[in-house]
Amino acid sequence: MNQPESISDEALRAGIINFLETAPAAYMPGATVDTVIFGFHKGKLKVLLLRFGNSSYFVLPGGYIGKEESLDQAAMRLLQERTRLENIYLEQFYTSGSADRSKDSPAKAILQEMIGPIPNNSWFDQRFISVCYYALVDDTKVNPVTEAFFTEVKWFDINKLPKLLYDHQPIIQKALKRLQADLDEKLVGFNLMSETFTMNELQKLYEAVYQKELVRTNFQRKMLGLGVLERLEKQYNGKSHKAPYLYRFTQADDAV
Amino acid sequence: MNQPESISDEALRAGIINFLETAPAAYMPGATVDTVIFGFHKGKLKVLLLRFGNSSYFVLPGGYIGKEESLDQAAMRLLQERTRLENIYLEQFYTSGSADRSKDSPAKAILQEMIGPIPNNSWFDQRFISVCYYALVDDTKVNPVTEAFFTEVKWFDINKLPKLLYDHQPIIQKALKRLQADLDEKLVGFNLMSETFTMNELQKLYEAVYQKELVRTNFQRKMLGLGVLERLEKQYNGKSHKAPYLYRFTQADDAV
Repeated sequence: MNQPESISDEALRAGIINFLETAPAAYMPGATVDTVIFGFHKGKLKVLLLRFGNSSYFVLPGGYIGKEESLDQAAMRLLQERTRLENIYLEQFYTSGSADRSKDSPAKAILQEMIGPIPNNSWFDQRFISVCYYALVDDTKVNPVTEAFFTEVKWFDINKLPKLLYDHQPIIQKALKRLQADLDEKLVGFNLMSETFTMNELQKLYEAVYQKELVRTNFQRKMLGLGVLERLEKQYNGKSHKAPYLYRFTQADDAV
Repeated sequence: MNQPESISDEALRAGIINFLETAPAAYMPGATVDTVIFGFHKGKLKVLLLRFGNSSYFVLPGGYIGKEESLDQAAMRLLQERTRLENIYLEQFYTSGSADRSKDSPAKAILQEMIGPIPNNSWFDQRFISVCYYALVDDTKVNPVTEAFFTEVKWFDINKLPKLLYDHQPIIQKALKRLQADLDEKLVGFNLMSETFTMNELQKLYEAVYQKELVRTNFQRKMLGLGVLERLEKQYNGKSHKAPYLYRFTQADDAV
């Protein structure tokens, strides 16, 4: 992963003060986009998070909405800035808007500790609603990028999340619920897999998303019954011919 | 339905000018709540809409978000103002936010035709994102209320919608899609029924939502298999004892 180049606190402070001055002309007031980026790695469902400043808190990748951008465009731009990926599966699932979701957050104190005093009633002091998306990425293709203010970018196991700012913890839980529903309804899970995979790998994905074990024979029958999997011919590679079959996802539209 | 008392254009104008002055202190900028209110009447799925001024356009009931209100609270308040109902099934399903969703809308021209010139760069000229909810109501209990500016409030068949302002037409289609998914997943349909109903009435609801005919025997088997219906004893009422059974929905939690 690309970790940020070192940047002086003074330069960071200048950057943030400049942002505060230019933001009102550039972005919609009162609204952010936050994205729960899911990846699947070695049988575990992961979420990509950013360390907030030098603190022990992490946040979801997110940002503001350009005045001429749609919500979807803003979400895609922010995601590409963070992962450098194109054509990512991205789905809006919820807008979080309790009146006090930013109140009592340690975010401002952490920021001020890093860069010194920030003006009151600045851009950061608005009430924001957060339009939330989830994204599904093949984690082997992601090269996450961070920037000066976020000092670390890291995949976390969905069951071992760090401390999170704002309401980002319940937002991740809501994203997981929606992913569980969409897995059956829209077959979105294949976006988390490599191009080819074994039936066992696919079962591990479903188990990680549903957070429970599934019966192998039932799972296999159900998946094959969907008519969206193509079984690849085994290629002799000198290893045991007991190697499991590889499968490829064929879009439902292409399926016979 | 309560139709509004007649109000002079002058009083209407004064009210709107006053609103424009007070809105920025009272409401969040750049965001609205809009609600697709579904009802089920005589076998048809209906949506409650408001006539915009004296025009031929209708809009979804909606409004602005108080600075101290959560999105859910704003949606519930606006819904109660409109229907006078408490304990309504209300579910956020989508946030609409293309940059041009209000551009080229005839709304301002219609308004100015009614009340005369409106200042430029006023509250109404902001770009708004719309946090969208759907509500399910027993239409026999609704007594929809309108107000001076909305000159008619009316149930429309989902398949015979009038001209709608902004992107309210695609928002209704998205609400229907979500309702279709939630009907199976969360059994929300019973919110649209009276307390007791026949199996045939329930089937008509499902057909209206799915927009297709269902096979009676399959439907009945599926519904009874859910374990959430209580069959009421027939009471002799002098009519044919071939009258169909009545059912009552028991919360899944109560079901054996």
